[in-house]
Amino acid sequence: MTMTAAVLDQLTARFGERASEARGVREQHGASEAYHAPLPPDLVIFPDSTLEVQEIVRLCSEHRVPLIPYGAGTSLEGHTSAPRGGVCLDMTRMNKVLAINAEDMDCRVQPGITRKGLNAELNGSGVFFPIDPGADATIGGMSSTRASGTMAVRYGTMRENVLGLEVVMPNGEVIRTSRRARKSSAGYDLTKLFVGAEGTLGVITEITLRLHPVPEAISAATCPFDTLDQAVNCVIAIMQLGLSVARIELLDSVMMRGVNLYSKLGFPETPTLFLEFHGTAAGVEEQARRAQEVANDFGAHEFQWATRPEDRSRLWTARDNTLYAGMALRPGVRAMITDVCVPISRLAECLLETKRDIDASGLIVPIVGHVGDGNFHLLILVDQASPDELVRAKRLHDDMVERALALDGTCTGEHGIGSGKMAFLLSELGDAVDVMRMVKHAIDPRNIMNPGKIFQFEDDAKVGA
Amino acid sequence: MTMTAAVLDQLTARFGERASEARGVREQHGASEAYHAPLPPDLVIFPDSTLEVQEIVRLCSEHRVPLIPYGAGTSLEGHTSAPRGGVCLDMTRMNKVLAINAEDMDCRVQPGITRKGLNAELNGSGVFFPIDPGADATIGGMSSTRASGTMAVRYGTMRENVLGLEVVMPNGEVIRTSRRARKSSAGYDLTKLFVGAEGTLGVITEITLRLHPVPEAISAATCPFDTLDQAVNCVIAIMQLGLSVARIELLDSVMMRGVNLYSKLGFPETPTLFLEFHGTAAGVEEQARRAQEVANDFGAHEFQWATRPEDRSRLWTARDNTLYAGMALRPGVRAMITDVCVPISRLAECLLETKRDIDASGLIVPIVGHVGDGNFHLLILVDQASPDELVRAKRLHDDMVERALALDGTCTGEHGIGSGKMAFLLSELGDAVDVMRMVKHAIDPRNIMNPGKIFQFEDDAKVGA
Repeated sequence: MTMTAAVLDQLTARFGERASEARGVREQHGASEAYHAPLPPDLVIFPDSTLEVQEIVRLCSEHRVPLIPYGAGTSLEGHTSAPRGGVCLDMTRMNKVLAINAEDMDCRVQPGITRKGLNAELNGSGVFFPIDPGADATIGGMSSTRASGTMAVRYGTMRENVLGLEVVMPNGEVIRTSRRARKSSAGYDLTKLFVGAEGTLGVITEITLRLHPVPEAISAATCPFDTLDQAVNCVIAIMQLGLSVARIELLDSVMMRGVNLYSKLGFPETPTLFLEFHGTAAGVEEQARRAQEVANDFGAHEFQWATRPEDRSRLWTARDNTLYAGMALRPGVRAMITDVCVPISRLAECLLETKRDIDASGLIVPIVGHVGDGNFHLLILVDQASPDELVRAKRLHDDMVERALALDGTCTGEHGIGSGKMAFLLSELGDAVDVMRMVKHAIDPRNIMNPGKIFQFEDDAKVGA
Repeated sequence: MTMTAAVLDQLTARFGERASEARGVREQHGASEAYHAPLPPDLVIFPDSTLEVQEIVRLCSEHRVPLIPYGAGTSLEGHTSAPRGGVCLDMTRMNKVLAINAEDMDCRVQPGITRKGLNAELNGSGVFFPIDPGADATIGGMSSTRASGTMAVRYGTMRENVLGLEVVMPNGEVIRTSRRARKSSAGYDLTKLFVGAEGTLGVITEITLRLHPVPEAISAATCPFDTLDQAVNCVIAIMQLGLSVARIELLDSVMMRGVNLYSKLGFPETPTLFLEFHGTAAGVEEQARRAQEVANDFGAHEFQWATRPEDRSRLWTARDNTLYAGMALRPGVRAMITDVCVPISRLAECLLETKRDIDASGLIVPIVGHVGDGNFHLLILVDQASPDELVRAKRLHDDMVERALALDGTCTGEHGIGSGKMAFLLSELGDAVDVMRMVKHAIDPRNIMNPGKIFQFEDDAKVGA
């Protein structure tokens, strides 16, 4: 019996029904919504407490067994694969809200609660958690990938909304990265180091989140355009005027067709902005009127308002479901999903050139974007059985990322590097990746935490992860 | 000749008039506005370029000569002292604006430009840089201490407004921590690691900053109260209602007396809020009206409006000068300046108990706070020649910090740890400080970068830094 097998046996005996070696469970946890090849872990454990996580980490660390934290499995760059096997920590049983401080507009939660679960618990408290990446991801997963989504343009990303963390370090120590003050200059910003570390530096076991007052008034609208460049340039103008939008999403005509198909709606199938305004009644009315004026200058059709809560909910559910809506355009194939983010002044160039490449590729590729941030996504629908399609899809993907980098943008605005974009991270940040490796080596010298993600690291290379 | 002396000779020969061993220059650079004992470096160099910084870092690294980056010398916790001697890098010649991208609301600057210098260059571009710590600090220094100040309540701190950095690492490599996209999930957030690192991880040589649209309308007001607890509780209510204030500053009656003295003004000498609202004309009017209503509920006197730009400028200059105004209350003595930050729900308790301690201490101690963030400062005016006063001042200081920690706050909201608050950092974050040390050790194993700051580190201990 190898050392790893002995450790797995010990953990199985210790956690009983909360440990699973079943093939189906392992395969589900080694996969995700990503298109990357799934690689199952050897064992999945469902811990209940920080103490249990600490116990598992200590044992695995001692015997160099890899550990992969897992939330809702909605990440998109192969973050949950287990290239060296090991133990998947499914955090979904640790899903409690530990404290809500409505007066301070913050809360403390366990990592396994989802964003929708959290907002359900906040209902009636006067505050809410705005970050909405589409999927009902867990707060732990969203912290680890530095997620953002539709409301980042107004409320920031997980980077701005995680105030502090409890983390089980690879050596088994439990640390708290911050007190509950709204700001601090006390030492290195460890909170921000773990937000976006994709589980490679430790296991997040508690998160203190910033919350925001529920707006007095909300209004949402869709706004169709005849052409993609009109829509993109309208967004750029709205942002540059400093208008306060809470959401400003772009769906191209292909994506609108998917939305109609999937959500059984009757939107015009042309490039469309989905907008939302938050504030006082008078403030929302003023901002919306100004946005409509700008849109008119760019040849927009009239805003279609969704003022009743149920209409707004239908509108944003349709937006949140674009992943499935996109896939509905070509049932049975997988979506290669990717994102980039560029300075807003370069957005039109990046998006329109990418659209030309899509048209030339012959593939069906809906576009959806958090364009107020300069961030957009492709859903490249590709028949995995067709080598030719795979080559065309890969070229489309790589050309888009390289274009974004050439425009001083990033290879990923919100999905993360995972195992899918390691080469692009090197192109993007060069020698800075060496500094990331130094940090990783210092904190996790045995490379047990989610190996094979973000960058190649010593023994990863040996197994070709 | 020791190795250090040989290195200093070599640098003096290389940099000519841009290197100084003059005692006055060295003493000025080893001091700052802090009350801590100044410790001069052996040599001060004024580099002109990243390449020159790289050359100096390589030489000093090879020979283990300490390096202390220096901006305007306005930091408050002994950040610029040289406990092991070495070379001070005065960055003030590297003070250019390298690029202004008004469309993207960002700019790229050298570290030696001050915030006022930057805003002068931005004048007319439609965008501005809001972070205002009072002093006309350099952008490099503000990044390194994670500064914030009066507008953080609306625009965030340096943490939220530094988008990317160029850094000369202790090994002489030059890295860029980020591209220019507004958000990114590409790897560890190195930008945020260097923001607040107080020069202990490398030398910042370029900064990409987020800018903000100049508001269409601005209005500012002062609002006097009869008692401190009315004023504090009014701030808490305004924040909890989610009213959008751009600034909300509290000056206690002692500080108001100092302001009148120093700025030759005629404010009522009672606890006073200084407020500012940014937005559209209608939005500003609405927010200001609501704030006035809340203030009335807490027994405030009427808002005194400063609507003309010159009146607003006079008002905020008076606020910015509170450090000097405070010292004007007792000419000839030094101010022990310190800050804490607590969750807003604990602010009243923290501030009012501190005020009781001040009254009991017999010392003159004006209070000024960025109270919208839960952050406030004491200026403890103390005769350094009086051992008894020093003991009372130290007790007042320590009691306030310990009170803030007991209320789940931080030992410093915006001044940093420097050499002054190392023990409190340990109380605040415990084992997390070990993780900071791991990161420091990985990036700067020879401990040449600003030694003796943030935490004790191996050979620091030997020299009692």
